[in-house]
Amino acid sequence: MAKLDFDILAQSGRARRGRLTTRKGVVETPTFMPVGTVGSVKSLTPGEVSDLGAGIILGNTYHLLLRPGVDLVAEMGGLHRFMGGWTGSILTDSGGFQVFSLASRRVVTEEGVSFRSHLDGALMELTPEKAMDAQTLLGSDILMALDECPPPDADREYAEKALLRDARWAKRAKSALRPESGALFGIVQGGMYKDLRAQSAELICELDLPGHSLGGLSVGEPKETMLEVIDATQPLMPRKKPLYLMGVGAPEDLINCVGLGVDMFDCVLPTRMARTGTMLTKDGRLNLRNARFARDSRPIEEDCGCPACRNYSRAYLRHLFAARELLAYRLGTLHNLYFTLNLMARIRQAIENDNYAAFAREALDRLSRGEHRAAADDQ
Amino acid sequence: MAKLDFDILAQSGRARRGRLTTRKGVVETPTFMPVGTVGSVKSLTPGEVSDLGAGIILGNTYHLLLRPGVDLVAEMGGLHRFMGGWTGSILTDSGGFQVFSLASRRVVTEEGVSFRSHLDGALMELTPEKAMDAQTLLGSDILMALDECPPPDADREYAEKALLRDARWAKRAKSALRPESGALFGIVQGGMYKDLRAQSAELICELDLPGHSLGGLSVGEPKETMLEVIDATQPLMPRKKPLYLMGVGAPEDLINCVGLGVDMFDCVLPTRMARTGTMLTKDGRLNLRNARFARDSRPIEEDCGCPACRNYSRAYLRHLFAARELLAYRLGTLHNLYFTLNLMARIRQAIENDNYAAFAREALDRLSRGEHRAAADDQ
Repeated sequence: MAKLDFDILAQSGRARRGRLTTRKGVVETPTFMPVGTVGSVKSLTPGEVSDLGAGIILGNTYHLLLRPGVDLVAEMGGLHRFMGGWTGSILTDSGGFQVFSLASRRVVTEEGVSFRSHLDGALMELTPEKAMDAQTLLGSDILMALDECPPPDADREYAEKALLRDARWAKRAKSALRPESGALFGIVQGGMYKDLRAQSAELICELDLPGHSLGGLSVGEPKETMLEVIDATQPLMPRKKPLYLMGVGAPEDLINCVGLGVDMFDCVLPTRMARTGTMLTKDGRLNLRNARFARDSRPIEEDCGCPACRNYSRAYLRHLFAARELLAYRLGTLHNLYFTLNLMARIRQAIENDNYAAFAREALDRLSRGEHRAAADDQ
Repeated sequence: MAKLDFDILAQSGRARRGRLTTRKGVVETPTFMPVGTVGSVKSLTPGEVSDLGAGIILGNTYHLLLRPGVDLVAEMGGLHRFMGGWTGSILTDSGGFQVFSLASRRVVTEEGVSFRSHLDGALMELTPEKAMDAQTLLGSDILMALDECPPPDADREYAEKALLRDARWAKRAKSALRPESGALFGIVQGGMYKDLRAQSAELICELDLPGHSLGGLSVGEPKETMLEVIDATQPLMPRKKPLYLMGVGAPEDLINCVGLGVDMFDCVLPTRMARTGTMLTKDGRLNLRNARFARDSRPIEEDCGCPACRNYSRAYLRHLFAARELLAYRLGTLHNLYFTLNLMARIRQAIENDNYAAFAREALDRLSRGEHRAAADDQ
């Protein structure tokens, strides 16, 4: 069996309804991957994440390299087992995104990137080969090649130099795979320059990897720019392979990007927002810390089937957030992840029904009308 | 039906195996009540607390008075419902313990105690009547009378003056009960003076309340002093009514105090310790943050049936505590509460088997041997 299979079951416009089969199991696409940064989707057990409908989660190699260390995770049976028995698939990033965010604390050469740990200042090095070794030790089912994510305002020269090196690094990553490694995805970069994106796509696709991602987007550029780059780049990618957009997870972005042919997403947005009391709903965001919810006996969202909405009122949740009770973060996270995973299920259904464009228009319209109403109520 | 029934099913020495029936249901005694300070047993859902075996939890009136306010809780259907549907019983304290801890921020008169909120400095007043009203609004099944908990080094004059006022306050509390109020417990005070305890016991028992507690213990005095005061006071209490020792919950204290005839306990110790990584086991305490657990694939406790021990290694838990992951606090809390509630189940079994003295000796011996071993390992 190949390390990764991808079947397209239906299409509606450019939106694709697919089925990804990793060595751990089946993932229905378009899919959203909750982020378990340091081996835990914050506040939740693996069983809960699975019950919410997630088939694949993302682990951060940089964080796990630093603490507890990938050797330790390997010794404990790999990340799936270490984290208490995650039965779904795991995609790991290369660690590059975090390392390149360290700015002054890192140095890039052709060999790789050296950096200082944000925890204890220890000098560490990440190379394309080391990134593969680390992800293989973690037991990742989908590995990402080491690349550089240039800042959104990177000039043309910088972006080109980076994408050319990324392509050389991706080749080295492929050579560093071992029989026990999962499937490798290559990453298309090129900043906000469509021609550079095309150049990167060509170089990366030449490697014939089982899947690809679009990196360096959703890093601060205007939303229209992001959508334009995806719109221009997606048609250059092999139709039969999954396309993954890194770091995107706001409801409107998921809807728009599926419409442009993206199959996979990950983002800390739903979980991070949850911990600040901001709930995602079909009618936009709801800030539970707002005083207007103090005596509101309704659930976060009337027709939601998540464990938080089934049992708890907005009034109680608001109280928990005000008192900084641990249960608040957990119930908020359950809701926001359920919402996001359920949105992906609705998206898949709309593609199967071949009415994605209408679904997207209606869902986006409802989100934006809700946001306007909430903004007025919050005055 | 009375607001509270208590049946003694078995006895072994002074240890009693009982059954408490509140208006919400049956609680097997001796029992331990997990503390849900502000309407949540920190990090857990009501369903989880119930699954761990808890039949009754404690709510703190002081905290709930301040935030979200008892009127709001009443409006939302009472504390059981507000917190997401707790199906067991709730005992609430009077708020007095926290108010008297405020030291310079409170003034006591015959009428009651006025104090400033630790949250916003607002001036508030608690009287015996207001404490009853607040607990009735919360929907508490067992209410505690307002009393003063003197410091452990209070002189005789202070302790006597306080217990006499406590008795007058308890009488006023009884008069302030409404038809919809739960059962009222009186509190025996008297500091560390056995004759004052006897005096308080007499005055409080005269009120013929359905249950009593021993207050003002475990407040910093030596353990032997606490046990001596209980040993001397318990025989003065009516045999057919439940006796509750407030603020006690360390395993060795639970074992010793059940041996002296105590039926009910509450304490933040298991839950608070859990959040610092200290796990309770039959062999004493285990500090999960210790480096020696970094590669330890065993569960916290080999034969434990709690959700944390069934799925997670010490190595993973240590990692979660080191990374300050929210899941750490939750899994630790599940273990420590399971341990404590399971200890109470073992205690009840030993009383039924009429071998409590042997059980207690063996359990205490194992705890203390384990503590010595752990202290050596931690070097």
